[in-house]
Amino acid sequence: MQTQVKPWLNLVLITLLLMGLQPKAISQSLKKPNILVILGDDQGTVDTHAYGSTDLHTPNLDRIANEGVRFTQFYAAAPVCSPSRASLLTAKYNQNARLFGNVSPPHSDPEYKSGLPTDEITMAEVFKADGYETALIGKWHLGHSPEKLPNGQGFDYFFGHQRGCIDNYSHFFFWHGPNMHDLYQNEEEIYRPGEFFGDLMVDEVKKFTAKDKEDPFFIYWAINMPHYPYQGDPKWLEYYKDLPESRQLYAAFISTYDEMIGEVLDHLEATGELDNTIIVYQSDHGHSTEERAYFGGGSNGIYHGAKFCMLEGGIRVPAMIRYPKAVPAMAVRNQMANSIDWLPTLAEITGTDIPNKEEIDGKSLMPIINDINAPSQHEVLHWATGDPESTTDSWAVRKGNWKLLGNPWDSEKELTFGDEDKLYLVDMSKDSTETTNVAKQNPEILKELLKLHTDWNQEMIQLKLANQ
Amino acid sequence: MQTQVKPWLNLVLITLLLMGLQPKAISQSLKKPNILVILGDDQGTVDTHAYGSTDLHTPNLDRIANEGVRFTQFYAAAPVCSPSRASLLTAKYNQNARLFGNVSPPHSDPEYKSGLPTDEITMAEVFKADGYETALIGKWHLGHSPEKLPNGQGFDYFFGHQRGCIDNYSHFFFWHGPNMHDLYQNEEEIYRPGEFFGDLMVDEVKKFTAKDKEDPFFIYWAINMPHYPYQGDPKWLEYYKDLPESRQLYAAFISTYDEMIGEVLDHLEATGELDNTIIVYQSDHGHSTEERAYFGGGSNGIYHGAKFCMLEGGIRVPAMIRYPKAVPAMAVRNQMANSIDWLPTLAEITGTDIPNKEEIDGKSLMPIINDINAPSQHEVLHWATGDPESTTDSWAVRKGNWKLLGNPWDSEKELTFGDEDKLYLVDMSKDSTETTNVAKQNPEILKELLKLHTDWNQEMIQLKLANQ
Repeated sequence: MQTQVKPWLNLVLITLLLMGLQPKAISQSLKKPNILVILGDDQGTVDTHAYGSTDLHTPNLDRIANEGVRFTQFYAAAPVCSPSRASLLTAKYNQNARLFGNVSPPHSDPEYKSGLPTDEITMAEVFKADGYETALIGKWHLGHSPEKLPNGQGFDYFFGHQRGCIDNYSHFFFWHGPNMHDLYQNEEEIYRPGEFFGDLMVDEVKKFTAKDKEDPFFIYWAINMPHYPYQGDPKWLEYYKDLPESRQLYAAFISTYDEMIGEVLDHLEATGELDNTIIVYQSDHGHSTEERAYFGGGSNGIYHGAKFCMLEGGIRVPAMIRYPKAVPAMAVRNQMANSIDWLPTLAEITGTDIPNKEEIDGKSLMPIINDINAPSQHEVLHWATGDPESTTDSWAVRKGNWKLLGNPWDSEKELTFGDEDKLYLVDMSKDSTETTNVAKQNPEILKELLKLHTDWNQEMIQLKLANQ
Repeated sequence: MQTQVKPWLNLVLITLLLMGLQPKAISQSLKKPNILVILGDDQGTVDTHAYGSTDLHTPNLDRIANEGVRFTQFYAAAPVCSPSRASLLTAKYNQNARLFGNVSPPHSDPEYKSGLPTDEITMAEVFKADGYETALIGKWHLGHSPEKLPNGQGFDYFFGHQRGCIDNYSHFFFWHGPNMHDLYQNEEEIYRPGEFFGDLMVDEVKKFTAKDKEDPFFIYWAINMPHYPYQGDPKWLEYYKDLPESRQLYAAFISTYDEMIGEVLDHLEATGELDNTIIVYQSDHGHSTEERAYFGGGSNGIYHGAKFCMLEGGIRVPAMIRYPKAVPAMAVRNQMANSIDWLPTLAEITGTDIPNKEEIDGKSLMPIINDINAPSQHEVLHWATGDPESTTDSWAVRKGNWKLLGNPWDSEKELTFGDEDKLYLVDMSKDSTETTNVAKQNPEILKELLKLHTDWNQEMIQLKLANQ
């Protein structure tokens, strides 16, 4: 892909030249806005002070929310790590991007079968083609063969771990054996034992934004916190010492990475780039209730469910955007939106072409960002991870206020489902906590949503088969 | 237990007082030798340069060996962590010490049922009663209720982890969920994130030996290396870069902790305490072939087996003692010996009473240390971990050159055993690699060793039942 300079841009350039401005000053004044997409990890639906949490101290996440737009009904594309990331980067449902489940570490998948197919077009590729310098700082978890690693998927620069999570001090991957070191700069393994991964990431983000660049930057900062291991700064453990243990550990980690984000915001402000940078923040899905996460320190508020399941607590996430030049401040939007929408949203702001726009599932959020009363840009949303041919995996489809769940389960173990609930219909306008299956009372709605899912799923099966 | 001053000691004291020496100088000149027991973890049978390894650089372990006595046929009391440690500390077979298997972390055993019973007398209690200041630096893994933690078992001071292994930079316990921080000073959880646990231990050992003490010190330094995670210094990874990956990682960790030991030796030399200190070194059992250990970077030389099994590679370990005042230098001993022997050996050198001497299984090694031709102090040795009532757990008994294994298996997966090998008799004088079952050819020997085991095991069952 080549960068194409728009005709009007040439005109502006000539005018500015005639006005006597130096080429560098010109190029800077014409520079597109920078982009910083920050992805949290396993953060609960309401786990930011700005989202109503009363026990969490998150002034920097709150700052992004308060100086921009915060969404109350924003969905991760999937309740699982790799699929959620694939969707964010491609603006497609993960199945449509042919990334069906979590990516296995290379020693479990020596033929590198899993991972995001390289012919999928990532956000990094889109902005790189438009002249951006692109970087991933943090977590990858989208494939391990050289061409499926970040440098093969549009990122000029990569600093972080390949496999999905690490100990933040040793940078070892512990979640499957063998216990291995996993810290890379581009494709080179590097050693920084003892240094807190959060601090290393902050330094990398600062360095990448500090360079005296001709071109704007696009940074995908995939923070991998508060994902276990809960390794918050001991000062925050002290601060939260009166909370129950799992919440204390989780909260300390949240505040630790909130501080990291604050350091970057301050840095951007100091270098004069803050208001030239579109900042997006989102969690990759709901909080974890795994044993490694002390069975759950996060909170989904009034909702049910958590990481791995299709209930709201698994997929409804904190999400916000700050860019004073085009996004209002102190604004809240209740329309449903999805992480697949960020790419078209950012592309609309920056005037960037999306080469495969007709193939993506996401929609620009600018209409609802600009108008609190605009309708959601999605009439229908789909969720499904795992094998589309499976008849037991969970899935969901939402149309307006109706949400149909297939094979629902609750990873928080609060809701239980019987055999009659394999198709579980909810009226979100009356029951956003998903406690009542109204399938029997609404056979026509059930039929309509089931057909929406079945038709879509059939396409996904075809795509899967074509991909084999 | 009370320290009893021996009558001759009073006489010496009075004589010295009459000579005009100050009380402090007197007490120092009368001070018993210090004791430093260093326990490696998952180190392979021959994995020291002094043991014939050609690829490992271990100058400091070699120094202990060369300046003291090195044993070629030294056995861990068990091929598993907690039982091996229980035996070392009590001088009893682990079953006799009523520690049957590995100790569970507290969240898996909330009633603290597992652990070393508090009425067992540990090495720390024995030396403390004789006026020693006692410390455990490193790994515990012998119980988690307050009275079963180190301070409850005779150690004046504890610095390290309770659960058995940690990440060396974050000090998190990762081997069972939840992922939790595990670093303590006595019973207080302390935070030193980012600091290499090896360096912390070296500092603690130095501090404990540097204090201007009235009394001698007894330190049990349980290093927990090269136990996974393999986190050797990157400079050693570079040094060993031409070795296969698992060996490279393992070797780098060995050399890292060899340097740690060197730092302590240098410190003791600089403070003038080196030759006043009895130094014992041993691995807790054979090398690991677990996935977390890259399926095995260690070496058992010509032997078979590894951690968890009763073949020589699981239980035959590097072991040495240095104490120039009573132990010859540059000496090698081939008599079979066992980690249960250290307590009586040390007690003989220091003239310390062992209050339950008639109950322990260990024997002083001084006769063989003093005489290369002395017979092994053990006519018979037993090994068994797990439930003594089990009919499928592995066990072994050795009498002279004969070794009988029950339910043998090879954690290295090199030897295979058929149904007829459930009783597996080996003549160690002809077949130290345990490749041939000669049970059929030696029915009388088989009968004799089987009875030795059965009688002993019956005692262990009674002990277990009495303990319930």
